[in-house]
Amino acid sequence: MSPLYCALVHHPVRDRDGHPVTTAVTNLDVHDIARSARTYGLRGYFVVTPIEAQRALVERILEHWRTGAGARRVPERTVALSLVRIVESVEEARAEVARREGRAPRVVATAAREAPGVEVRSFADEAARLRSGDEPTLLLFGTGHGLVDDTLRSAHALLEPIRAGADYNHLSVRAAVAICLDRLIGERE
Amino acid sequence: MSPLYCALVHHPVRDRDGHPVTTAVTNLDVHDIARSARTYGLRGYFVVTPIEAQRALVERILEHWRTGAGARRVPERTVALSLVRIVESVEEARAEVARREGRAPRVVATAAREAPGVEVRSFADEAARLRSGDEPTLLLFGTGHGLVDDTLRSAHALLEPIRAGADYNHLSVRAAVAICLDRLIGERE
Repeated sequence: MSPLYCALVHHPVRDRDGHPVTTAVTNLDVHDIARSARTYGLRGYFVVTPIEAQRALVERILEHWRTGAGARRVPERTVALSLVRIVESVEEARAEVARREGRAPRVVATAAREAPGVEVRSFADEAARLRSGDEPTLLLFGTGHGLVDDTLRSAHALLEPIRAGADYNHLSVRAAVAICLDRLIGERE
Repeated sequence: MSPLYCALVHHPVRDRDGHPVTTAVTNLDVHDIARSARTYGLRGYFVVTPIEAQRALVERILEHWRTGAGARRVPERTVALSLVRIVESVEEARAEVARREGRAPRVVATAAREAPGVEVRSFADEAARLRSGDEPTLLLFGTGHGLVDDTLRSAHALLEPIRAGADYNHLSVRAAVAICLDRLIGERE
């Protein structure tokens, strides 16, 4: 099994009109995605924001749960949040995975849309590659209205959008991460 | 395809020690699960709480997004939240599905654990039944530490726990709903 990491990107991401913006980190994204990452056996979860005050905020949240009152009250939360690292950029997340794993990760982007000039890979293909390989892999998820085209193009692969049979696709990023992890590495008969 | 509904139960559910409690409704559970329910084509999403003040709170949230400022700013959220109904009990949710569909629903409970004396059905079996059938079906999800045994026993079926290959299973209910809906009715090759 390939060592797997994920990153939640707050910059650069698209706003409603497709323009690049920086979104705010939310406490719940830190918790929910850490719990999903831990449940699916990921080696790390990067919260990506260039805003120093937000990084400090996340550090304070983590401190509460890692060693503060939260750790005593809900110990299993401590386990999940121990996966979280706060970084300035996707580049820093890539470098951190490379440092830990001894080789640069394959970067797999996700989007709820197709993107011009970027090859899309199916969940089944990507799942097979993760299962049979040993290459460190970093999954990128965008907040706001998703990752910008430059980020999609600079990745090694783009996962197909989650299709659900309806004409509506506005999943929360928390739900999208959970579904992607389950499709890629969940146990099935 | 069977008409599908889901319910998020705030009472009775288990606390950390397995005792029955009532949990608080959170704004985010209303939004996230409505978005997942709409994406997967569900016909309705019931928020179940016996506490009148909480039902009034959810009505106020819904009002904001259905016809207030939220509806103008994020119209796709209005579409998702139009699925939400607030009810006092699981029994009321069952009755409401029966009223709409003209027959009582099959009730399928979910849990992160096995329960004594309750037969567990696999995601694959349940997915096949939903695909090929026309029976209205109501999926129950518990907040807190999950649905109580009485609720599991009174359901027609209990879905197997989500297995993810790791020794940890503390998914948020938002993530668990997303994964269950995807396993039951998501599109796959």
